[in-house]
Amino acid sequence: YDYDRPLMKTQVPGPRSKELTKQMGQIQNNTAINFFCNYEESRGNFLVDVDGNRMLDVYTQIASIPIGYNHPALLKVVSDPNNASAFVNRPALGILPPESFVDKLTEGLLTVAPKGLNRVQNMACGSCSNENAYKAMFIWYRNKERGTSIPSDADLNPGCPELSILSFSGAFHGRTMGCLATTHSKPIHKLDVPSFDWPIAPFPRLQYPLDEHVRENAQEEARCLEETEDLIVKWRHKGMPVAGVVIEPIQAEGGDNHASAAFFISLRKIASKHGCAFHVDEVQTGGGATGRFWAHEHWGAEDPADIVSFSKKLLTGGFFYRDEMETDKPYRIFNTWMGDPSKNLLLAEVLNVIRQENLLAEVTRTGKALLGGLYELQAKYPNLLSRARGQGTFCAIDVCKASVRDKLILQARDNGVILGGCGDLSIRFRPALIFKEHHVHMFLNVFSDLLAAH
Amino acid sequence: YDYDRPLMKTQVPGPRSKELTKQMGQIQNNTAINFFCNYEESRGNFLVDVDGNRMLDVYTQIASIPIGYNHPALLKVVSDPNNASAFVNRPALGILPPESFVDKLTEGLLTVAPKGLNRVQNMACGSCSNENAYKAMFIWYRNKERGTSIPSDADLNPGCPELSILSFSGAFHGRTMGCLATTHSKPIHKLDVPSFDWPIAPFPRLQYPLDEHVRENAQEEARCLEETEDLIVKWRHKGMPVAGVVIEPIQAEGGDNHASAAFFISLRKIASKHGCAFHVDEVQTGGGATGRFWAHEHWGAEDPADIVSFSKKLLTGGFFYRDEMETDKPYRIFNTWMGDPSKNLLLAEVLNVIRQENLLAEVTRTGKALLGGLYELQAKYPNLLSRARGQGTFCAIDVCKASVRDKLILQARDNGVILGGCGDLSIRFRPALIFKEHHVHMFLNVFSDLLAAH
Ligand code: FES
Repeated sequence: YDYDRPLMKTQVPGPRSKELTKQMGQIQNNTAINFFCNYEESRGNFLVDVDGNRMLDVYTQIASIPIGYNHPALLKVVSDPNNASAFVNRPALGILPPESFVDKLTEGLLTVAPKGLNRVQNMACGSCSNENAYKAMFIWYRNKERGTSIPSDADLNPGCPELSILSFSGAFHGRTMGCLATTHSKPIHKLDVPSFDWPIAPFPRLQYPLDEHVRENAQEEARCLEETEDLIVKWRHKGMPVAGVVIEPIQAEGGDNHASAAFFISLRKIASKHGCAFHVDEVQTGGGATGRFWAHEHWGAEDPADIVSFSKKLLTGGFFYRDEMETDKPYRIFNTWMGDPSKNLLLAEVLNVIRQENLLAEVTRTGKALLGGLYELQAKYPNLLSRARGQGTFCAIDVCKASVRDKLILQARDNGVILGGCGDLSIRFRPALIFKEHHVHMFLNVFSDLLAAH
Repeated sequence: YDYDRPLMKTQVPGPRSKELTKQMGQIQNNTAINFFCNYEESRGNFLVDVDGNRMLDVYTQIASIPIGYNHPALLKVVSDPNNASAFVNRPALGILPPESFVDKLTEGLLTVAPKGLNRVQNMACGSCSNENAYKAMFIWYRNKERGTSIPSDADLNPGCPELSILSFSGAFHGRTMGCLATTHSKPIHKLDVPSFDWPIAPFPRLQYPLDEHVRENAQEEARCLEETEDLIVKWRHKGMPVAGVVIEPIQAEGGDNHASAAFFISLRKIASKHGCAFHVDEVQTGGGATGRFWAHEHWGAEDPADIVSFSKKLLTGGFFYRDEMETDKPYRIFNTWMGDPSKNLLLAEVLNVIRQENLLAEVTRTGKALLGGLYELQAKYPNLLSRARGQGTFCAIDVCKASVRDKLILQARDNGVILGGCGDLSIRFRPALIFKEHHVHMFLNVFSDLLAAH
């Protein structure tokens, strides 16, 4: 059902997109709009815009389209009259779930539960997933301190303790105020918004390819681990103990920063040693793009995390958690909707397609072709490109200057390929799981022409 | 398409609900679950559970079902093949909106824009709506202080100022960490979660019916206004100025606390006088249940607010805002999805039904019957009931003791009427907009039998 190639009619944004963007400016801030889309006409890996341009999409709505546009399996879910009720009667899931909800969780989300995490809390987006994961960690931490899950009257009043979440430089965990306190990818995201005095540990700044810089990278990681442990101790002494450590398995918004399995496993141990919960934020990395369903599976750890949060490609949001992180009472982790069963229906179908089409193996194969191509390009253009890196199709490469990076992204778009930036200098690749080797070559052809002409 | 009456087969929860609740407990916290529902069989004002019980729903998924279950107009939206794409291709609305998005906003949300608020930011739920409304107020406040919307490098680093949002005792604005700092309805909601040191003003504690206690109530409101102004000054002197004042037009979770139009208008003036934005949170009150589309319309103010946030009955989330509250740069008010166009499609249809069926006038009529009935009951049972109050069908009544209130709610359910509690002693009424006078009588019959038997 996919198109076979890009087809460009105008520069992007074209006249119709520009007109609509102007209209949008009358209603709300329009300064982030790239262009307007014709989603009806979009198919598979190709996004069609309102000027009739058809582009290979290697960005997929900020990494959130799992199996391409208008996938027939998903269209079937919507057109099935048995599902109509799920789309029009959004329940308050925490109090009045639909009959099928337990089954849907069991057949859906729980089939991809991370190792050791038997429980899942449905939420609606990455931000409420992380906000509530933080709350679950605070509650767990305080229950541990109290030695009982039944708070006394004195606990209830005032009730808001001095606790912190430790996060990493360059991290991105969302933009609501709790999440934002742990987000450090770009100053403009935090500007003017009050925040908490929480510790920020250094995320390792590694050299790529990782296997050619093992020794230096190990040193850098050791430094970061040491500083992390120091911060945990320091914040405890400040009277604002670290209830949880939150980290992305690959820092995405912050510039596709990787670290070794050994780093994450050591970090998890340090967290446990100091009584902090360990929260792996897989909002952007989860869902298969690294070639495993969860990026943290690459660590090969027996006991990778206490909490794993997700959203984006999983269409709904939520977090998996260890039994002991269960809250004690009703209404502590709660909101009106607690997710959306119609998204769970679509997700169950996405998971079926991933299994039936063996998409994780496909992603691994496609990813090798993509990373191989990036290595070749950076060897050919060492003054322009560097630090090619990736897992599966979750790849990135750095460009010498931000202005050149931004220009390349715009030029690629005008030539039918949608890319995204991240960090200061990186181009990130976030195709859908149905991105194949021939799509890699389509991208590489366009990109190498641009580089040659630079 | 509605049923004509309740039909009870078991106590609620029945055996099937109990079994499913037990299963749910294996997966996540199940302590807030009331029962499991058969949404396919539910219709209009009647919610059907998995044990075949059919109940008159006067709570509607925590006030979030606007025009009843399985409304034909909404089912049509889902079954229309032209809409399928909106359900399966969820875009990153802030960067790649669909072609029809501006039109849908213009035909939908903007037709109900509050007075003076020409702009609307789509969001996904009540929490992200309020979190982002707070951020918009912080940004606006700092830009005012800077005298320019272009932050300098020094502004960017560290970038997180000491600013506050003033909220009211008993308020509920959501449970993510920014919202939670302004939520004070129940201590358990905040327990163990770090918060901000922000000012909390007293919400007037009025006597009902309002028109029989004008003088005492005016005194109480004057006291609260004075204290509010004092707090604004105090927090400015503390170096943590109040960027915005947030208030519900009727405090819902906190116990259906009303205040007079004069109170809100004076409060808005005090906020303006001190340079604070004025944010009216209509997440629970908005959408027609008070007999006006927005509860704040009852104030009759020319200039009611700077920001009005919404969600629940509007199916999507977001906030309306004044032109001058527009942010200056991209990605400051932003997240991956920024709402969901499929919800906007459904909302547009809800608004059509409200207009076609003249539902606001209907709500006013039904609400009179409901409040009248409550007045009669409290006259008849003065030891059990008091403080009947309401606007439209957005009504509440107090019960002498929490344990009696809770018992009455359970008994009503076993007799086919779903009610909700709020505050310490209140029963709240939150029917859909299609709740008619004969539904009021259905409820009153059940309820007066219970009271007689008490
Ligand atoms: S915060 Fe996640 S949907 Fe609103």
